[in-house]
Amino acid sequence: MRPVYLWFVPLLGILTACSQMPESRSPRDFSPAPSESEMNRVSPAFAHYTNDMVIGDLWHRAGLSARDRSMVTLSALITQQQVAELPYHFNLALDNGVTPNELSEMITHLAFYTGWGNATAAVAILSDVFEARGIDNSSSPAIPEQRLPLDEEAEANRQKLVDERFGNVSPGVVNYTTDALFLDLWLRPGLAARDRSLITVSALVAAGQPEQVTFHLNRAMDNGLSKEAASETLTQLAFYAGWPRVFSAMPVFKSVFESRGVLEQ
Amino acid sequence: MRPVYLWFVPLLGILTACSQMPESRSPRDFSPAPSESEMNRVSPAFAHYTNDMVIGDLWHRAGLSARDRSMVTLSALITQQQVAELPYHFNLALDNGVTPNELSEMITHLAFYTGWGNATAAVAILSDVFEARGIDNSSSPAIPEQRLPLDEEAEANRQKLVDERFGNVSPGVVNYTTDALFLDLWLRPGLAARDRSLITVSALVAAGQPEQVTFHLNRAMDNGLSKEAASETLTQLAFYAGWPRVFSAMPVFKSVFESRGVLEQ
Amino acid sequence: MRPVYLWFVPLLGILTACSQMPESRSPRDFSPAPSESEMNRVSPAFAHYTNDMVIGDLWHRAGLSARDRSMVTLSALITQQQVAELPYHFNLALDNGVTPNELSEMITHLAFYTGWGNATAAVAILSDVFEARGIDNSSSPAIPEQRLPLDEEAEANRQKLVDERFGNVSPGVVNYTTDALFLDLWLRPGLAARDRSLITVSALVAAGQPEQVTFHLNRAMDNGLSKEAASETLTQLAFYAGWPRVFSAMPVFKSVFESRGVLEQ
Repeated sequence: MRPVYLWFVPLLGILTACSQMPESRSPRDFSPAPSESEMNRVSPAFAHYTNDMVIGDLWHRAGLSARDRSMVTLSALITQQQVAELPYHFNLALDNGVTPNELSEMITHLAFYTGWGNATAAVAILSDVFEARGIDNSSSPAIPEQRLPLDEEAEANRQKLVDERFGNVSPGVVNYTTDALFLDLWLRPGLAARDRSLITVSALVAAGQPEQVTFHLNRAMDNGLSKEAASETLTQLAFYAGWPRVFSAMPVFKSVFESRGVLEQ
Repeated sequence: MRPVYLWFVPLLGILTACSQMPESRSPRDFSPAPSESEMNRVSPAFAHYTNDMVIGDLWHRAGLSARDRSMVTLSALITQQQVAELPYHFNLALDNGVTPNELSEMITHLAFYTGWGNATAAVAILSDVFEARGIDNSSSPAIPEQRLPLDEEAEANRQKLVDERFGNVSPGVVNYTTDALFLDLWLRPGLAARDRSLITVSALVAAGQPEQVTFHLNRAMDNGLSKEAASETLTQLAFYAGWPRVFSAMPVFKSVFESRGVLEQ
Repeated sequence: MRPVYLWFVPLLGILTACSQMPESRSPRDFSPAPSESEMNRVSPAFAHYTNDMVIGDLWHRAGLSARDRSMVTLSALITQQQVAELPYHFNLALDNGVTPNELSEMITHLAFYTGWGNATAAVAILSDVFEARGIDNSSSPAIPEQRLPLDEEAEANRQKLVDERFGNVSPGVVNYTTDALFLDLWLRPGLAARDRSLITVSALVAAGQPEQVTFHLNRAMDNGLSKEAASETLTQLAFYAGWPRVFSAMPVFKSVFESRGVLEQ
């Protein structure tokens, strides 16, 4: 028998704590996003850059679709647990064509790549967004009936390499890496391999881990991410993960582009 | 005269804010953790991995006790300020045998090792958990009467090394490192040296600072952490700090295991 | 005169939250900061270090003014999205002489240097602080009429260097770096160049990016930051970003101090 989450029980009590509270009120209504009037009261400068440079310019650039920009942005926000902007960007992602189940798969993927606690927080916020839009993803498969095809040779090489390097450092990590990640998570059909790679690379840049980018950027480009899209991913991340994260990642992107002969494109 | 915290006064009022509200209601009840029904509505996939792989499997693995897994997990959550899961994991830690005062000492330790703001947030959440369980830790010593014995030779070497390298870079840092950390915090008897080392190493991996792990993993193993426990700490952290953090730390663990002649164990 | 913390005023509104929620009630009323009694209930140890070592000692050290310590601390908190302490430290910064518009410019600057989501969250919290103190910054210029003078030769060199290295990696990043950062943000007169440098360096240390510190610490010292102030910035950051972040940054500070011939000062 599998364990059951018991800790939600007391939270339910809060929802009915005050009989006068609006029905729709829930814990996540207390997300700390500022209104536009609050933005202007505090920082006309920040409101200006947000409206004119980010919303008015960045999001409309060529080279990366609005849908992809939403996936990159959500990866950066979830990785850094920047929950204040999540309601807005979950809604924008749905408007930009990311499906509810793709959001579910993204959060699940980022649980493994950025830590469980980030995904838990994201699920809570997305639940409110789904409720407000009348979306229910509960019929999506917990375990898919069919999985994406596996490149068995590449996976055998990966296993061999990781096992030789780290098999006697942490067998637990090495085994879960194979069984949970590469033979399971990455083969779930709910999110295209190219999209899994895009959010993985975005998460690595946002987390400040350029040392892990080489493997995943190559994989992303093997999975169909163009050089132009990778380049614009960095532009999007400059705003949502901060300039220094991007400047630390650029030498790695350059070296991957060079090794694939696409730097001068 | 030193400043006094005045900001606590009005918060006391909140505890009795709504006459209809349960006595225990407080601001931190609004922690954004999802209920199981919200999990299933949004992501049956994430609910499946959480229940079957993490709660149902990871936590029951050999090599690291449930108590130690709680300490490792809390370190990762506090380091990354992933507050949504903290109420659940503080409760689980108490259930797994971590004492209230050990939690107090953990938070205090992590204030120094991950930043004051992480500890402040954790105290607020733990206060609610203590209140709900009727726990009061206020009689624990702010300043212990007796301290753990000091390895004076090792400490003299550490001081000499750090003073030579950084004494003229930041005397403030160097002095606090000696007086506040190694002659004070680490000698508090409320948390065993081995446990302080375990949470320090966990925090360093979760923060993405493998460059600081060598010193503290050696210290952890000097303090009694086995190779197997260190290895399983990485497995636990793969889920709670994310795979990339662990993969960046594994070469350092390998090198420490090698230098101590325990790699092949 | 010791600082007084006024930010509790709006919290009083919660007292009547249930039966008739006041219009003015806002999400940020539920900021998860612990009261002093909660601190003592949970961790007399942490309360002791907070009151005696941090508030009672660190903030009164020579070498860095209280105003500068507030800027350094806010940078660390915003970079790490440690929102629980933000209301307290925004108020303290105002008490220490940081002006409302300097706070607005700081947040805007840190949006670019640590990610948009951190700034958004900070604006929401600062809005409540401003409201409680009757501050309105909405007449500050979104786009300043005059900008600070530009060192054209240094900027031409910077552009040439970055364009050569990364122009074909991500033209978007390279162009925004010039147009948005160095020809726009850094020339806004609302925050002195030395202060922009101070918060940039603080953010880089807090984010765990010592590899980006060399350029900005040199720029900070060119902009007037003394060696002593830089050294004490590290001391302040030891507490607010955690010891390991500072120890990873110290070799870079040392190397910059050496190259400028100020190490032995």
